Amino acid sequence: MQLNETHDKNLTSWVSSANANTDFPIQNLPFATFRRKGSNEVFRGGVAIGDQVLDLATVARLELFDEQAQQAVEAAAGKNLNAFMAMGQAHWSALRLALSRALRTDSELQNQLQDALIAQSDVEYDLPCHIGDYTDFYTSIYHATAVGSLFRPDNPLLPNYKWVPIGYHGRASSIGVSGQSFPRPKGQTKAPDADTPSFGPCKRLDYELELGIYLGKGNELGDTIALDDADDHVFGFCLFNDWSARDLQAWEYQPLGPFLAKNFASTVSPWIVTNEALAPYRLAWTRDENDPQPLDYLESSKNRELGALDIQMDVAVETEKMRSEGKAPYRLSQSSFKHSYWTVAQMVAHHTVNGCNFQPGDMLGSGTQSGPEHEEAGSLLELSRGGKEAIDLGNGEQRKFLEDGDTVIMRGWCEKEGYARIGFGECRGTVLPAK
Amino acid sequence: MQLNETHDKNLTSWVSSANANTDFPIQNLPFATFRRKGSNEVFRGGVAIGDQVLDLATVARLELFDEQAQQAVEAAAGKNLNAFMAMGQAHWSALRLALSRALRTDSELQNQLQDALIAQSDVEYDLPCHIGDYTDFYTSIYHATAVGSLFRPDNPLLPNYKWVPIGYHGRASSIGVSGQSFPRPKGQTKAPDADTPSFGPCKRLDYELELGIYLGKGNELGDTIALDDADDHVFGFCLFNDWSARDLQAWEYQPLGPFLAKNFASTVSPWIVTNEALAPYRLAWTRDENDPQPLDYLESSKNRELGALDIQMDVAVETEKMRSEGKAPYRLSQSSFKHSYWTVAQMVAHHTVNGCNFQPGDMLGSGTQSGPEHEEAGSLLELSRGGKEAIDLGNGEQRKFLEDGDTVIMRGWCEKEGYARIGFGECRGTVLPAK
Repeated sequence: MQLNETHDKNLTSWVSSANANTDFPIQNLPFATFRRKGSNEVFRGGVAIGDQVLDLATVARLELFDEQAQQAVEAAAGKNLNAFMAMGQAHWSALRLALSRALRTDSELQNQLQDALIAQSDVEYDLPCHIGDYTDFYTSIYHATAVGSLFRPDNPLLPNYKWVPIGYHGRASSIGVSGQSFPRPKGQTKAPDADTPSFGPCKRLDYELELGIYLGKGNELGDTIALDDADDHVFGFCLFNDWSARDLQAWEYQPLGPFLAKNFASTVSPWIVTNEALAPYRLAWTRDENDPQPLDYLESSKNRELGALDIQMDVAVETEKMRSEGKAPYRLSQSSFKHSYWTVAQMVAHHTVNGCNFQPGDMLGSGTQSGPEHEEAGSLLELSRGGKEAIDLGNGEQRKFLEDGDTVIMRGWCEKEGYARIGFGECRGTVLPAK
Repeated sequence: MQLNETHDKNLTSWVSSANANTDFPIQNLPFATFRRKGSNEVFRGGVAIGDQVLDLATVARLELFDEQAQQAVEAAAGKNLNAFMAMGQAHWSALRLALSRALRTDSELQNQLQDALIAQSDVEYDLPCHIGDYTDFYTSIYHATAVGSLFRPDNPLLPNYKWVPIGYHGRASSIGVSGQSFPRPKGQTKAPDADTPSFGPCKRLDYELELGIYLGKGNELGDTIALDDADDHVFGFCLFNDWSARDLQAWEYQPLGPFLAKNFASTVSPWIVTNEALAPYRLAWTRDENDPQPLDYLESSKNRELGALDIQMDVAVETEKMRSEGKAPYRLSQSSFKHSYWTVAQMVAHHTVNGCNFQPGDMLGSGTQSGPEHEEAGSLLELSRGGKEAIDLGNGEQRKFLEDGDTVIMRGWCEKEGYARIGFGECRGTVLPAK
């Protein structure tokens, strides 16, 4: 992914809210699907700029762009982004460039585009695309080790971890967009000292701080995507909360993996920050010299040079008490995707090396992004050390796991000297009482 | 599911091939989507009768049925069956009754429907519906014990097995219809005596003899489907081959379950035999008195009385040598779904007890249906005792696992004194050499 004029820190927009204190400066230009709040309008594609949404259906009708960008904006104007995502990098880049130029301070298109803006405070979002299949990876070795030590004290990190980008299939139907709420799940659990399992509401409800990675162009069944071609297939990123019922998980997960502990709800942020927008925040990817080095299909100089991504994330909880007292949410932890043991390209290459096919709109979860320090853990399971230590929320409340009414809020951003700060917006979800 | 006039053994059809030696007598009436072989026609819904397909798009245009059946046939005439499957049991039953009456020997509609028939030998099939999510269960305790003893000799059947209907999410994108072929998957494997894994084509490629269970009407996220309501949501059944790369599986599956070992291809038979058609072949479901009895949400007198289903299945292999010599496929094993440790209703109730939502067209795999005897095993892994004993194919060839060019053919049928024999057709797939 090349740096180009759209990444220039000095760009400003005629949409003044894009020029300071925003997740969505002109260097970002993420995509979502939206409509006016409470309306019966059809959802359509939009691009965030400052505190506004640029309505791509309106932009498409104006026919302002060259052929490739016009094709792209017409596809992105649909009820979901799948057709646009299927087009591939050339079309994605053409539209990004056209939008960047159209929204710049000196653009001649300002008058025509003014009416295509709608305040973000006036809209609601849908899932940005139809997610056909969702796969969750497990790329934080810190998370894998910490969780492993709780579920399998004698055997925390399994021997395959440093060789295989471990992943498993998740449930697509229960993925919802930020603002999602769901009843506390019920299920079977078994206390370590009990003879038999019991049934009831989950007592150890947790979040997982993850990135979602959207596939754009897919591959045919039987074909593979080589490591160095992965960027051509990755459309962009969102924040992702992989809600988890830890007590259900501990009882059900052997031998076939997590199931009801995860599939009651998963929440994505509405905006997809494109792979291209993230180009400035790439880093070298390294593997500790004492660890196994990747097998050939997971190894390349390109992946070594720019495979990692410094996407910073944090997670906060807002309790009912905080809401009623007008208090700000409490930040539980902060981490970065740069700590990931595997890169996105390695996930893509591994997932397809057996011929498994991606379709446009498929999503990969990064797995919980815990950092090397305990304070950087991406789940309450880790922060509370398996429910043994309560976390003080600074207002007299404590949490080991989530309680009814808790809202979990995730945020993400990238910043780097010489480049603009871009953000992901919010991923927000609320636990309702069990039905 | 009540018995009614459509199940009467004495019914015959004016389609003469439906009256003897067929999987598709008038008591069956399964659904598929099809078009003329090699054509560019749109796929549309069809019903099997003898060696013919009744084209539901033509039937819909004729407007022969009462309102409910007419609504149903119009939905089933679409490019996939999802809209019809979403309608629920009243519409499914209305169309079944209308089709049964229309196809009977004495039907007044024979002349009008004659032109709606196309020979099955002249058509090709698509997936019958869009499968949004696919979950694979693990309901044969004989399979779970046999496979467990190979993967975990010291701990074959885990303590949760007799309490939890174990399942996991599978990959929907790589499900194909009978006739599917795919290259032998590549991936990481690690020999027990090796220090490090290696990469290459799978050496232990296997099939799994399963049923696929299609959900019709879904449920909202957060809602549950009670055990005794499950029949209202189950549309029907197919044969399902959950191809498995055993050497990949052994290395990758801990702790999050099978992934690349399964998602390179899965094959369904084209015809969906409806839950209603299977009503005569239901059996009492029992749980050994020495085993744990189900928790309340998995227990009911209805489930005890008629929860089991005697669907018989077999699996055969056709090698390249057999094809070139004109020899019949070799039957490897035969089993029945009646041995399942859990019923379909228990799978549905368990899957939704945490609020997970089904959508019309979602599919459940039954898990490999191995019977109590070694000869009834539903996979080569079991038949060859983990690759230790070669299976003689009767023509001088042997198999421990599948070789390139092997076609695996699954069949299923139900028969019972006093009722017609109905069948599932074939589920056929072929292993191509690794790319």
